[in-house]
Amino acid sequence: MLYLVGLGLGGVKDITVKGLEVIKKCSRVYLEAYTSILTVGKQALEEYYGRELILADREMVEQDADEILRGADVTDVAFLVVGDPFGATTHSDLVLRAVNAGIKYQVIHNASIMNAIGCCGLQEAGLSQGPSKGARNEMCLLKLSHLLCFSDIKVKEQSMENLLRGRKIYEPPRYMSVNQAAEQLLEIVRNRREREEELAISEDTVCVGLARVGADDQAIVAGKLQQLACCDLGGPLHSLIITGHLHPLEVDMLRLFATQPDSLQSLRTTDSSTYTS
Amino acid sequence: MLYLVGLGLGGVKDITVKGLEVIKKCSRVYLEAYTSILTVGKQALEEYYGRELILADREMVEQDADEILRGADVTDVAFLVVGDPFGATTHSDLVLRAVNAGIKYQVIHNASIMNAIGCCGLQEAGLSQGPSKGARNEMCLLKLSHLLCFSDIKVKEQSMENLLRGRKIYEPPRYMSVNQAAEQLLEIVRNRREREEELAISEDTVCVGLARVGADDQAIVAGKLQQLACCDLGGPLHSLIITGHLHPLEVDMLRLFATQPDSLQSLRTTDSSTYTS
Repeated sequence: MLYLVGLGLGGVKDITVKGLEVIKKCSRVYLEAYTSILTVGKQALEEYYGRELILADREMVEQDADEILRGADVTDVAFLVVGDPFGATTHSDLVLRAVNAGIKYQVIHNASIMNAIGCCGLQEAGLSQGPSKGARNEMCLLKLSHLLCFSDIKVKEQSMENLLRGRKIYEPPRYMSVNQAAEQLLEIVRNRREREEELAISEDTVCVGLARVGADDQAIVAGKLQQLACCDLGGPLHSLIITGHLHPLEVDMLRLFATQPDSLQSLRTTDSSTYTS
Repeated sequence: MLYLVGLGLGGVKDITVKGLEVIKKCSRVYLEAYTSILTVGKQALEEYYGRELILADREMVEQDADEILRGADVTDVAFLVVGDPFGATTHSDLVLRAVNAGIKYQVIHNASIMNAIGCCGLQEAGLSQGPSKGARNEMCLLKLSHLLCFSDIKVKEQSMENLLRGRKIYEPPRYMSVNQAAEQLLEIVRNRREREEELAISEDTVCVGLARVGADDQAIVAGKLQQLACCDLGGPLHSLIITGHLHPLEVDMLRLFATQPDSLQSLRTTDSSTYTS
């Protein structure tokens, strides 16, 4: 059996009881280490699980999946993923390879940023996912529902030069921060204004920045876009939500996280123009 | 401290280790019992946690929240929610009441249908949430991204007569099934066609029915809308996805769940007209 086990978002104890039991009984346990990161590292997980983990980077999962699946028809293999196992296409690919090889699989779900983001009080029903590759994709900025932008993650990526030369030298991991994303959005706003093109957001659009959701030191701030461009939410991973039409209860929740006590005081909630404060 | 603890979707062991530790240390533990259900009941949870659970129905949460929060400034109270705690607006309300009463709160996340739905292989990025109140809302049917419709849940609801007479007599719980939702959609398709109005779906639109996601006996079927109107996925809870533009990898995954071996064979994946097979 191939078990795809979600680890949740925060620390070692965010695994489910069911997931932990699976890890303890499997003959090999892989840790997927490129679509997301936990606030704790591999070593902390190994100590807590009492198991050695095999790091599975993008190369291994995409090019050496057979090694991960080896023997999984007669023994149990676990593949651990931060968040929920079905956040990234690559893991569908692993499932398909397993099924084609006659290997059964089971998914053990957990929280992911897709649902945990609700902790800021915005209803998931109104959340659309934005461009995963940075915040520069202007196409998405005309939507009126809340827009969730994941900050860009670059782990084990090669520079263009090293890629062309076939050298397996990797850049240090980089994680986009909320203030960097907000700064890029402000640039788009300014560029559009210069070109006199319409855009649904402005410097005053209410946004929410979230960091390390689910971890003990998670940080949430709500404020105008230009305020978020100046905030420092600490270590990765960061997410940014551009709010759309806000329900009064959503406004009340956002006020809990206001960058400044009065920054969301004037927020109106009466009509669809409420995404500026 | 008020702890809002997600229970995940399947059985007793879908709670996180962190969540289980919280339940064991709290002085009172409430089980929210109206926005969703687990495949196991209150008694199974009580036995597994080794704790008595206080059932919190809609009336209690909406009208007697002070009782839930009583003493939570000096002791620990847990509020358990199937899935993730922030799936329903009501729980934002509880958080706001806590904060206003000077009570700290902490959220312990878990899988919810919003992210676990990815197990059918459709990327969440393309998923929009449809009408929660049944599938009859025609407004949403013109979208082209995948549309997730939760089947209607009616728990502890009064009949109109009992409501008007102020009698606290409740109807038996009802859960809409995938085939009922598909049947309602077919009716909309037929009505629209009679009125010669445009609609983005037809009898041949590829849909996915899911039941008891995350539980050991979860069921997933993929097929044309008219095929799903004839399927029986067993007990609640059910969800239905109307697919939009499909990525080739999504098609491969859906074929794993085809209602009939050949029902998705002819599915094309080359352009945005791919949502008919």
